[in-house]
Formats: sequence, C-alpha cells, structure tokens
Amino acid sequence: MSNARSEKPRPCPFCTYSESPSPAGGPGAESVVYKDDQVIALVDIRPVNEGHTLVIPRGHYPHLSDVPEPTWLAMASVGRRVATAIRQGGLRCEGINLFYADGAPAGQEVPHSHLHVFPRFRGDRFKLDSGQDQVAPSEELKRTAAKLRAALPPL
Amino acid sequence: MSNARSEKPRPCPFCTYSESPSPAGGPGAESVVYKDDQVIALVDIRPVNEGHTLVIPRGHYPHLSDVPEPTWLAMASVGRRVATAIRQGGLRCEGINLFYADGAPAGQEVPHSHLHVFPRFRGDRFKLDSGQDQVAPSEELKRTAAKLRAALPPL
Repeated sequence: MSNARSEKPRPCPFCTYSESPSPAGGPGAESVVYKDDQVIALVDIRPVNEGHTLVIPRGHYPHLSDVPEPTWLAMASVGRRVATAIRQGGLRCEGINLFYADGAPAGQEVPHSHLHVFPRFRGDRFKLDSGQDQVAPSEELKRTAAKLRAALPPL
Repeated sequence: MSNARSEKPRPCPFCTYSESPSPAGGPGAESVVYKDDQVIALVDIRPVNEGHTLVIPRGHYPHLSDVPEPTWLAMASVGRRVATAIRQGGLRCEGINLFYADGAPAGQEVPHSHLHVFPRFRGDRFKLDSGQDQVAPSEELKRTAAKLRAALPPL
C-alpha cells in the first residue's frame, strides 16, 4: 500500500494463495477469512491494524480494469462482509477503511488486483494526508465533470 | 477524508445534491459525472487531484452497513466506471485510488456514505503512511482469521 515500485513477482503470491493456500512459506489455509469460486479473503501479513484483510480475485487480474464485472462486484460484496466481521469480531475497531490501489503510482505493490479492508481507531499508526486543502474554482470543476461524463464507459 | 471529527450537518449536503443538484451554493448539476436511480457521482470540490469524484447513494445511509446491498454494488460498479473515465478523460493520471471511510475515526467527514475515486501521479500531494512495517506473528494471524471467519455475516 506504499508508493514503492514493484516488479511482478514470479510466481504471483496471490495466485499461489488463491489456488492452493498452504501453511508453508507464508499465509496459508489458516489465514483464509473467506473463499468462494470468485474471490478469496486473507489476513494481511503486515496489518495496518489487527484484522486487516485482503480481498483477492481468483484469477490473475493485474489492474482494476482487468477484473470481470461479476468478480469486481463479488470483491465489493465480500469486502463489506469482511468489514462487518471486523466490527463484530472482537477486534479493536472504531471505524473501517476500504482501500484499492490501481497501479504502482497509486500504491499498488502486488500486481494482482486486491481490495484492502482494515479497522481503524483513534491514534492508530495509519496516517493519511489527502492534501485536500483548497476548494477548486467552479469553472475547473465544471470542466472536469464534463470531461468525465464524456469519458464514462457505458454499462 | 481527514481524521477530523464531524457533526451531522442539517440538511445533509449529499442528500441535497442527490435529490436536486443546483448550481446555487455548491456543486450543482454541472458537477454531476453520473446519475441513476441508485447513485450519483459528483466531482469533489476539494480534489486530491483533478478528477476526484465521490460516488454517493441516493438515500441517506450514514454507514457502510446501512447501504442496501444492490446500492452498494451500484456504488462499486459506478466507482469503477468513474476510474476508467478518469484514466481516459485526458486528466493527469498514472494510477487510481478508491477509498471508503466508514466512521469518523476512519476519516469519514460527511455522515452520508460515499466512495472516493481519484487519480494519482508520482509526486502528488496525497500522502499515505500505512504503518505496515512488521510482519505479524503467524499465531496472531491465525487467531485473527479465525475470529473473522466466525464473525463473517452470511450472504
């Protein structure tokens, strides 16, 4: 989730886990929170806070745009169920973040699509500075929205 | 998206925009990127980077757990289409983040559910320190995963 660049590892660790979770050499079957035909959810070995889980498609889709729509919706649905589990699972949790990084400049470290879900509490070590200080000029907002409307892909 | 606490504003700005976008007093119709029966997508008036869009359910659902499942899936689907529009819309974009803050301790500022979608580029002003430095002991990961499996709500 950092801004570090990453090379594509071979074999892809998320493919390895989603195909056959094994206790040997990393997160294995005992780290699986949920699994179905489309996605697997695993606790992150370097948690932001205890409960940090990754929701991963079963299939090597590097970017957000590569993930088939039903699989993306399954990731979103399972991500929300994991958020509920974190809130109700007896862990320290005052809030939840869902975070998706698409591309190395956005913080994607493993080139296999994954959605982060993690608990937050006041004073935890996760720090975010959005840089959102200035209200953009309304003319700029108008132009931006027009560009996005024109580029929005159809359903 | 900061860690600032927030009181519930009355009237809720996101309800105002989703019910009847108007140019008066804030983002209005010209800031709308997309709208359907379930969700509205608006450019953020304080963008992380140009193109920053909020995907908002039409209906006052404060928390992630309040959003009906079809509406949550619509938010996820539209969020991804907005990501594509940002990449293809001629804006500065080397990567994309999707970010959802559930609860003030997680950075939720407006108590009406919303998904952030924004472009990223190397050297931009968005800074994130995940605090992910230590690999958690495998016994802890195993216990955490067991707690989450037990607390995972059914489909």
